[in-house]
Amino acid sequence: MSSTTADSTPAGTTDAGFVTVPKGLAKVVVTDTELGDVRGDEGFFHYRQYSAVELAQKVGFEQAWHLLFHGHLPDDDELAAFTAEVGRLRIMPRELADLLPGICATTTDSLQVLRTALSAWGGVSGIRPLYDADADEARAAAMAAVAVTPTILAAAHRLHQGLEPISADPGLRHAGDYLRMVTGELPSARDARAVEQYLVATMDHGFNASTFTARVIASTGADLAACLVGAIGSFSGPKHGGAPSRALESLDEIGTLDRAEPWVRGRIEAGDRIMGFGHAVYRTRDPRSEMLKAVARGWDDPLVVLATGVEDAIEKALAQLKPGRELHANVEFYAGVVMKLAGLDPSMFTPTFCVARVVGWTANVLEQSRDPKIIRPAAHYVGPPPPQPVPTGIRTPQPA
Amino acid sequence: MSSTTADSTPAGTTDAGFVTVPKGLAKVVVTDTELGDVRGDEGFFHYRQYSAVELAQKVGFEQAWHLLFHGHLPDDDELAAFTAEVGRLRIMPRELADLLPGICATTTDSLQVLRTALSAWGGVSGIRPLYDADADEARAAAMAAVAVTPTILAAAHRLHQGLEPISADPGLRHAGDYLRMVTGELPSARDARAVEQYLVATMDHGFNASTFTARVIASTGADLAACLVGAIGSFSGPKHGGAPSRALESLDEIGTLDRAEPWVRGRIEAGDRIMGFGHAVYRTRDPRSEMLKAVARGWDDPLVVLATGVEDAIEKALAQLKPGRELHANVEFYAGVVMKLAGLDPSMFTPTFCVARVVGWTANVLEQSRDPKIIRPAAHYVGPPPPQPVPTGIRTPQPA
Repeated sequence: MSSTTADSTPAGTTDAGFVTVPKGLAKVVVTDTELGDVRGDEGFFHYRQYSAVELAQKVGFEQAWHLLFHGHLPDDDELAAFTAEVGRLRIMPRELADLLPGICATTTDSLQVLRTALSAWGGVSGIRPLYDADADEARAAAMAAVAVTPTILAAAHRLHQGLEPISADPGLRHAGDYLRMVTGELPSARDARAVEQYLVATMDHGFNASTFTARVIASTGADLAACLVGAIGSFSGPKHGGAPSRALESLDEIGTLDRAEPWVRGRIEAGDRIMGFGHAVYRTRDPRSEMLKAVARGWDDPLVVLATGVEDAIEKALAQLKPGRELHANVEFYAGVVMKLAGLDPSMFTPTFCVARVVGWTANVLEQSRDPKIIRPAAHYVGPPPPQPVPTGIRTPQPA
Repeated sequence: MSSTTADSTPAGTTDAGFVTVPKGLAKVVVTDTELGDVRGDEGFFHYRQYSAVELAQKVGFEQAWHLLFHGHLPDDDELAAFTAEVGRLRIMPRELADLLPGICATTTDSLQVLRTALSAWGGVSGIRPLYDADADEARAAAMAAVAVTPTILAAAHRLHQGLEPISADPGLRHAGDYLRMVTGELPSARDARAVEQYLVATMDHGFNASTFTARVIASTGADLAACLVGAIGSFSGPKHGGAPSRALESLDEIGTLDRAEPWVRGRIEAGDRIMGFGHAVYRTRDPRSEMLKAVARGWDDPLVVLATGVEDAIEKALAQLKPGRELHANVEFYAGVVMKLAGLDPSMFTPTFCVARVVGWTANVLEQSRDPKIIRPAAHYVGPPPPQPVPTGIRTPQPA
C-alpha cells in the first residue's frame, strides 16, 4: 500500500502525534488478513481464495470450516477426522446443560442465552487465555466453541417452548444435526442441504463490527469465550446485522403479489426502510441472495413464487423511487425464505445465522492471536480545559 | 486538529480508498470525548475537567460517578437522591441471585462470574437495545448495571468460599457496602475510605482496550449488557490490565527490605518484567500510585514500610539497569497494598478494580450511544489471489 499526499486523504496527524481518520474508522485498515475479503463493487466475496458462493454450492459445513481454520479444503481422510471431532464436540458438557434452564429463565432471546451460555462455557471448558495458549490449544478451544454453539441454541429453543433439549448425535453432520436438535426430527436431505448452503454462505463476511469486536478482545490476550461474548454483543446490535425474520414478515404483510407495488410505495412515502433490500457494501446484487434464491427454487411452494415476484416488484419500485441507489435483495430476503421452507421457526433465524458466523469469528480470533500488538486507539478530549479545582463547598461524605 | 503533510504521518490512503494507520490503531483518534483524558507526559489525568487524583482525595464514589454520568459534581440534594437510588439498585434481582450459585459452579474466576452474570442480568433487567432507548432509559440501565456489580462480585467471592452471599444495605454508601458484602463486617471508616479512594482513582483512564471494546459494541446499538460483557472480556486479557495481586506477590517474595535490590537485579538479568513498575502511557510517576502511597501511609503497618522501601530500591535499581526508561511504581503497586490493608483478599483485587471501572465503561457507552455512526474499520486481504475454483475432486458429503 502506497501513501498519497495529505490532500487526497482524510487521514492526518496532529501536533500531539494523534492520527485523524474518517468517522467510525470507515475504510481504516486495522489488520492484514488471509481469511477472505468482500469486493462490494463486484458482488463477490471469498473465504481464503475460494468464492464463498461456489463453496456453498459445492461443499459442506465441515469442509468450509476446515478451510477457514486450516487454510485448505480437507482431503477425504482429513474430512473424516474433522467431522468425527466436530461430532464429539457438539455434545454439550453436563455442567453447561445443568445451567441452561436457569439461563433460559432469564430471557426469551436465544442470542442472549448464547451470550450467557458461551460465557459460562469458558469456565466449564477450562480454556486458558489466548495469551497463554499455543496455536494448537487455541484452535482446540475454537473447535469446541463452534461445535457446541448449535447445541446450545437448539436447547434454548426447546427449553423456551417447554420441551426437553435433544442431545447431539456425533454420527450426523453439523448442519443436519442442528436442524434435528431444533425440530426433533431427522431432516430430509433437501432441508439439511438447504440450511447447510445458507450456513456456508454466511460463515464469514469481511470485517464487520462483530468480527472486529472479537479481534479487539483477542488482541488483549483474553480467552476465546471473552472474544465470542463480545462478538455476539456486537452482532445483537440493530445497526450491525440483518434479521432474516423481518424480510419474511414483510412477505407475510404483503400476502399476495399484486399488493407488492403499493406496499413498497407506501413504505417509502412513510420514510420506512424496506427490510431485506440494500447493503452497506454491495453496489450490485448480493451474491448470497442470488445463491439462496436458487436454493429456494428447490421447493415447489407458493412462498417461493411470492418471494421471487415480490423481489421483482420491489426492485422495480425502488429503481423508480430511489434512482441510482442500486437497492437489491440482500442476504436477509431469501435467507428467511429458505430457513422457513426447511422447517425453522422465525425466532431461530438470527440464532441460525450465529451457528454459521461463529466460524468466522473464531477464525478471526485465531488469526488475531498470532499478532502480539494490542488494538488500542485513542480519543480526543473536547470538554472544558482541566484542571478545574474541586469547589471548596464539596464535602466528602462519611465513607460507610 | 490540523493535518500535516503525508511525509510526517504514518497514515495514508491506498488506491482503493483504504486508510493505512499505525499497527494496533495506536494514537488513531476514534472519537471525541468529554469524559476525560490522560496526559502521560505530565503524569496527569482527569474526569471531565477535574483532576482524578484530587477527586479521589476529596469526593466519594457516588460524587465521582455522578460527575461522569451527569457532567457536574452533585449538590447536596442531588447527592442524597443519587446515593439513595444507587443504594436501592445495589440489591440483586432475585432471578439473578437464583442463577448465581450455578454460575459460580462453572468457574472460580470472579471476573468470569461477573461476565456471565451481567450477560444474564441483561435479560433479567429487561433492558432494551441502546438503539431503541432514549438518554434517560440508557442512563437508568447504566445506573443499575454499575450498582449491582459489587453485589455480584461480593456474592461470587462468598459462594466460592462456601459462604452465604450478603444482601446489599441501601442505607450504606457504595464503597463501604461493597467491603461489607465481601468481608461480612461493617468496615472501619479508614478501610472504607481507603478503598473508596482507590475506586475513585481507577473509575476511568482514557481510551484503554476495554473502554474501546464497550464503545464498539455500543456503536452497533446493542444493549448495555452486551457492551459490558465485551468490556469485561477485554479487561480480562493479560495484555490489557494490571493485576494488583502480582505486585503484592512480589513484596511477599522479597520479604525483607535488604533483599529488594538483589531480587530486582535477579529478575532483570533473567529477562523478567518487574510487576507493578512501568506504564504504557506515563513517562512520569503514575499519579494514582503517588496518591495511593499516601493512603497506605494511613496505616502504621510493616507492609507499608516494606512497600515504600522496596519501591525506592527497585526504582534505584531500574534507573541503573534500564537507564532512560523512567520506570516508576504504577497503580498496581500501592493498589494491592491498600486493598490488603483494608481487608480484601488478593483474589478480589482485580474484581475490585472492576467495581470502579464499570463506571468508566458505562459513561463511555452512554456517550457513544449518542453517536449514530457504527465503528467498523477494514482489513486488508493479503492471501493468494481469488478466485481459485473448488477442485473437481472435492465432493459434497451427504447432508445429514
